[in-house]
Amino acid sequence: MDKERIRLARLHDKVVSADEAAALIRDGMTVGMSGFTRAGDCKEVPFALARRAAAEPLRITLMTGASLGNDIDRVLAEADVIARRLPFQSDATLRRKINAGEVMFIDQHLSETVEQLRSGQIAPVDVAVVEAVAITEQGGIIPSTSVGNSASFAMLARQVIVEINLNMPLELEGLHDIYFPVQRPYRQPIPLIAPAQRIGLPYIPVDPEKIAAIVFTAKDDSPSNALPPDADTRQIAGHLNEFLLREVRAGRLSPSLQPLQAGIGTIANAVLHGMIASPFRDLQMYSEVLQDSTIELLDAGRLAFASASSVTLTREVYQRFLSNLDRYRSRLLLRPQEISNHPEILRRLGLITINTALECDIYGNVNSTHVGGTHMMNGIGGSGDFARNAHLSVFVTKSVAKGGDISSIVPMVAHVDHTEHDVDIIVTEHGLADLRGLAPRERAGTIIANCADPQYRHLLGDYFRRACAHGGQTPHRVEEALSWHAAFRDRGTMQPARPAQALAA
Amino acid sequence: MDKERIRLARLHDKVVSADEAAALIRDGMTVGMSGFTRAGDCKEVPFALARRAAAEPLRITLMTGASLGNDIDRVLAEADVIARRLPFQSDATLRRKINAGEVMFIDQHLSETVEQLRSGQIAPVDVAVVEAVAITEQGGIIPSTSVGNSASFAMLARQVIVEINLNMPLELEGLHDIYFPVQRPYRQPIPLIAPAQRIGLPYIPVDPEKIAAIVFTAKDDSPSNALPPDADTRQIAGHLNEFLLREVRAGRLSPSLQPLQAGIGTIANAVLHGMIASPFRDLQMYSEVLQDSTIELLDAGRLAFASASSVTLTREVYQRFLSNLDRYRSRLLLRPQEISNHPEILRRLGLITINTALECDIYGNVNSTHVGGTHMMNGIGGSGDFARNAHLSVFVTKSVAKGGDISSIVPMVAHVDHTEHDVDIIVTEHGLADLRGLAPRERAGTIIANCADPQYRHLLGDYFRRACAHGGQTPHRVEEALSWHAAFRDRGTMQPARPAQALAA
Repeated sequence: MDKERIRLARLHDKVVSADEAAALIRDGMTVGMSGFTRAGDCKEVPFALARRAAAEPLRITLMTGASLGNDIDRVLAEADVIARRLPFQSDATLRRKINAGEVMFIDQHLSETVEQLRSGQIAPVDVAVVEAVAITEQGGIIPSTSVGNSASFAMLARQVIVEINLNMPLELEGLHDIYFPVQRPYRQPIPLIAPAQRIGLPYIPVDPEKIAAIVFTAKDDSPSNALPPDADTRQIAGHLNEFLLREVRAGRLSPSLQPLQAGIGTIANAVLHGMIASPFRDLQMYSEVLQDSTIELLDAGRLAFASASSVTLTREVYQRFLSNLDRYRSRLLLRPQEISNHPEILRRLGLITINTALECDIYGNVNSTHVGGTHMMNGIGGSGDFARNAHLSVFVTKSVAKGGDISSIVPMVAHVDHTEHDVDIIVTEHGLADLRGLAPRERAGTIIANCADPQYRHLLGDYFRRACAHGGQTPHRVEEALSWHAAFRDRGTMQPARPAQALAA
Repeated sequence: MDKERIRLARLHDKVVSADEAAALIRDGMTVGMSGFTRAGDCKEVPFALARRAAAEPLRITLMTGASLGNDIDRVLAEADVIARRLPFQSDATLRRKINAGEVMFIDQHLSETVEQLRSGQIAPVDVAVVEAVAITEQGGIIPSTSVGNSASFAMLARQVIVEINLNMPLELEGLHDIYFPVQRPYRQPIPLIAPAQRIGLPYIPVDPEKIAAIVFTAKDDSPSNALPPDADTRQIAGHLNEFLLREVRAGRLSPSLQPLQAGIGTIANAVLHGMIASPFRDLQMYSEVLQDSTIELLDAGRLAFASASSVTLTREVYQRFLSNLDRYRSRLLLRPQEISNHPEILRRLGLITINTALECDIYGNVNSTHVGGTHMMNGIGGSGDFARNAHLSVFVTKSVAKGGDISSIVPMVAHVDHTEHDVDIIVTEHGLADLRGLAPRERAGTIIANCADPQYRHLLGDYFRRACAHGGQTPHRVEEALSWHAAFRDRGTMQPARPAQALAA
């Protein structure tokens, strides 16, 4: 087995226990771990670190591709190992510590972390810990179900720990395309002009001397926690399909549309799922994560090719995927997140991007990260990379949350991740607002009429009219603009106080 | 003269009066006019339009590169000719009508307008009106002091009106580099890898059949209205120079830095002016507009090359520039704004970008457009194109405005143009905040300590501490976050009410 999985013989004596490997990581270090949207994370060394932290001071800066599975962020946060974390996370325990100010979280555009590392603008990676399927004859690392930042971490780190996961079939080899932009000021154009194009190597090329430890593991990725489509998300998908069909009929899009990107999560997954029954053909994806819907679109023959940085599937689809790699490998490709999310390529290809909003305001600004304007949910992730450079930037959200106590359409978002300039289309279960070429006052009309829940529509219209009385390109009553968020925080609902409550207040 | 300026003989009979040319523009049309930061605007046809509007209904959608000089936006706004305007403006009268909701203003990233036009996502250009130095033997249009969107307007419009400006010397020929990205889905990498590189043609290639009218003019561009450096802007320049020098000493930048971009206006101009006395050498610019400071840096031998989309100078420097084109032409280049601002190229080159903030908040979010959060100043311009893709994104502002009644550092910006992710450095006359790799709570500490005016520092610190009591990644008291803006609106100052006033209230 070792011979297939570690093909460079002189690395065989690097195989150690997770505890021995973790000993390379010392207090105060910056550690770059593989893992992107719960896929391809390291499954042993993080836990060895947590065990050690019970006995000695051990706090690190932890960088990853994006979110980790297997409760790694929870276990490390509980063991107080994480002092700083970037560029994304989605764990409840870690989130609590971030919001308490106990962990410093640097929330970044996912394409940018590596640029900052490479130029020395953030602390260098001391140790990289990377999950792999195998190590090649030259010492190249073959990643597993994600690439994320692993390739750059391994290239830039002083030492590399490789976790070879025996649960990952060797057939994953050939799925990856590892390319690094040339150093500035000699950087050349990135030669990629189509989602299916290969521009790099099928492994991460590292100096074998840097491989300081190899650990064998045999655990699965955590399954996706996206929920199946429901009535609301089906309606969102329906509105978007109708709109895209109108664009095709108007000659502004071809029947194969433009390459698609969809963010991680239930709604974006459901929207793609909705394309199975659409008239669009020969679709392509150029995304950061592939979810169940991608596999279903491939199986249904709707999707010709999908490029991303990770594959994050529910348990059943994950097993189907790993057991039938021969069927998928010619139609899938995993790239470093710097490339999957690179502004150069996104602008060149001209994507239709579908990302999830936590809330939108009546002018089309989007909050995708901060609950109530203050508390971090997960992070901006790649949404900024994609929305800014899109051919057509779509944001989706249900019109209400918490049983109607929160309106996802508000007078002013309490935190801005995406400005109105980067938001072309907003879709809720009630309808779609096409904001292209509209001024803010015009945007307000269509967002309120098409996207807001009926129980909030007149309140938003009333706010807008009163705001307009003060004038402005983007009319607001600043003293009232965030009052809906304060009401939810104080009273548990954005709905207006009933007369009796008003009297009591 | 006609032979030198109109080298294609069969176009000679297209020469008409401005009124005759303007007759091609009809009520309801979309008109694309040349002009970028007051440079290279059309100087006769717009006034003919305004005259006609006195006698007949004439309302148009007006697109330009960026702002116009010669009071064109004022005259057209007063004549009520402008129904819709994009993507940028800077005129007081037009601004008043925009803020009153009488003109719909679509504020756009300057690199994006042409993408949207080309893909049919905004209304097509009916007539382009383009200032030129001359028309070539093939009918190519040689622009004057700006390129902006002129090349694309001329290519995409059904009809083109050329204004040949005899005040623009023929020596401007050769200063321009006109390149269009290939249509999607066949788009290739843009081959530009250095600011000085030529990738296109020295003229706008149009079908001569589309040239419907030619008007001769003889007027100068409006001079730049940037103010000369003052004590505060000199201090801002000093802080930035010191920081860049530390980066050079730390080995993170070379002594020729990275290509520089500086936004239009007094402070950014002063910051570049401050580099004349710096130790940096062989600097390059890859910017959207070149101001006096560029010419001074070239004259001082500090700057090796400057690429932009326009040249906007004060009167004296303008005359010096136009009279000595031989001296400058090998070291200057003007490109379409789609290329000067293109994310692909900006990310590849890795710029140091210097843009002006109207206000910043304690977490590093920037408002560069909306006074009080509601009223449009000029527009986002290219600042988003540059800040998002920068190697090092710097925002500069004086710490106070209106004699101290406005703090440019506030608890929460009332409008977001640039999120904290896109802001690396903030500089005021008091100092510099280096935000790289910091979490929001850490950002607050350094922004308040280094950038805020002393009279507001303790108020900001007090807000931050009270906000932290509520927790969060980005702590805020939403009911109070915008109260400084309300105070300025209602009381004319962000300073707290004095006890006597408080009693009276």
